[in-house]
Amino acid sequence: MYALAVHGGAGALPRVPFTRAREAAYRQGLMQALAAGQRLLDADGCALDAVEAAVAALEDDPLFNAAHGAVLAGDGTVELDAAIMDGNGLRAGAVAQVGHVRNPVRLARRILEDSSHVFLVGAGAERFAEQAGFRLVDNGYFITPDRRLQFEALQQQLEQAGAAPDALAAALDEPPLGTVGAVARDHGGHLAAATSTGGTAGKRPGRVGDSPVIGAGTYADDQTCAVSTTGHGEWFLRTVQAYDIAARLRYGGFSLQAAVSEAINQRLSALGAAGGLIAVDHQGAIAMGYNTPAMFRASVRSGEAATVHIY
Amino acid sequence: MYALAVHGGAGALPRVPFTRAREAAYRQGLMQALAAGQRLLDADGCALDAVEAAVAALEDDPLFNAAHGAVLAGDGTVELDAAIMDGNGLRAGAVAQVGHVRNPVRLARRILEDSSHVFLVGAGAERFAEQAGFRLVDNGYFITPDRRLQFEALQQQLEQAGAAPDALAAALDEPPLGTVGAVARDHGGHLAAATSTGGTAGKRPGRVGDSPVIGAGTYADDQTCAVSTTGHGEWFLRTVQAYDIAARLRYGGFSLQAAVSEAINQRLSALGAAGGLIAVDHQGAIAMGYNTPAMFRASVRSGEAATVHIY
Repeated sequence: MYALAVHGGAGALPRVPFTRAREAAYRQGLMQALAAGQRLLDADGCALDAVEAAVAALEDDPLFNAAHGAVLAGDGTVELDAAIMDGNGLRAGAVAQVGHVRNPVRLARRILEDSSHVFLVGAGAERFAEQAGFRLVDNGYFITPDRRLQFEALQQQLEQAGAAPDALAAALDEPPLGTVGAVARDHGGHLAAATSTGGTAGKRPGRVGDSPVIGAGTYADDQTCAVSTTGHGEWFLRTVQAYDIAARLRYGGFSLQAAVSEAINQRLSALGAAGGLIAVDHQGAIAMGYNTPAMFRASVRSGEAATVHIY
Repeated sequence: MYALAVHGGAGALPRVPFTRAREAAYRQGLMQALAAGQRLLDADGCALDAVEAAVAALEDDPLFNAAHGAVLAGDGTVELDAAIMDGNGLRAGAVAQVGHVRNPVRLARRILEDSSHVFLVGAGAERFAEQAGFRLVDNGYFITPDRRLQFEALQQQLEQAGAAPDALAAALDEPPLGTVGAVARDHGGHLAAATSTGGTAGKRPGRVGDSPVIGAGTYADDQTCAVSTTGHGEWFLRTVQAYDIAARLRYGGFSLQAAVSEAINQRLSALGAAGGLIAVDHQGAIAMGYNTPAMFRASVRSGEAATVHIY
């Protein structure tokens, strides 16, 4: 029995008209990513390979805020963060502030496999990528016309308000949709999680959110669950959100669904933190929770039909 | 009632002869840092101010692996990581890969106070520092003659072994002593934690360990406890060690001492992870645990005598 879930971010819908055609494109992107992971699980592949494939597909899709199509930082460049974790042996790899690697989740995977370190950032991460044989790409590869327009609108809005640089990010009252992630349980009972993002639109250069932080945005442990989060990254860093779900199972005897519901609807909502998460436990149960207007998400379990939802 | 504890790292003793005079110098450094925090707590200061002052004192002391006296990365430079967290409101600030800020813990504090972000790295963190009025220093300020010698010996040893760059860090079979941290509970019942480090000697440039990662190396929540860790950073990232202690209290009903003992002596030891941590709970209980040959540590509670220990 296997289980796989993917997300494309939780937040408010874009302020541009969210047409039926646009909605269909997001659904299609989610289903394609799910299929990329499912193909591997169907062929007895491991959870780690499945989450990497699903997240890489979403990174390549310009609709989502990860790699190609990522939001722009306050200086008009793209800075990417990603992490991946193997619940089998607690192996992990993470990168932040990467601007020239086509698929940050694949770089995180390579760190997991080949480095004595877990977390590499900036130029050091890209030097590792080069040495590992990754072809570096120009930062412009990641920037789509839609994101350029969004950036210019945000700049104009803040210039008019006379806001300081740090307010660029704070000006967005809802976390933007778009961070991507995947969680899986494979036939062998192993769990894995991966997350990838461009972060917050207009963020201060050098800002790292929760996505690449093991325990905050990404966590997996075969004995409990695998989790990928999306939302107000700063809050999820403070609540150590991904590991908080695992700890509720490990120490509190929570079911996965109860852990996710209580964390999202009670604790995070009480703190004023907006976002969501997807999780799968060692028995293959899937839970997806969010306290935002929408969360792009899709899931499938072996022998069952795949589902995709926005609201 | 207040409580304060500081650590100067857990690991094996340095391979240079650890003379009585040298041991006395370490004890004195720990006691001075403790006194810097205690002065504030005695004057009804808050836990957050106390841990910042204690860690800044250890950063300035060349004996410890933080700021002045930090270990060198594989490229011969110093890259500093630090974090601070306020258990009152879960506010946090963190920096990584900083090479020009005299007291990284004070920069982390400024992020906690003034930024909408929690975690800033590299040049972006230093740009924030400049804008906040910090005077930047040359990277050479951090490099002491002892650390230069250690670096050259490590280089030579690895060249002889024909080892790859990543093996530089892995070659150290014990985590080096020296990362610093502090935890406190103030008269008002608020908790705080702070940690600062130069990381692993010979680390790959861009490597981030557990110290600046909220949940891994540093965590504080008034409802549970404040924790600062030291040791094999990569393992503490994977086990989300600081928040794991808080979660054992929150969800498992553990006492602080039981949580620390079980985490260090059972879980971490079973995983082959070496290190230690200091913690204080909301009632002012202090727990300090390690599975290494030594941990530099000192603590005090209001109305009691201060103690300092190495073994």
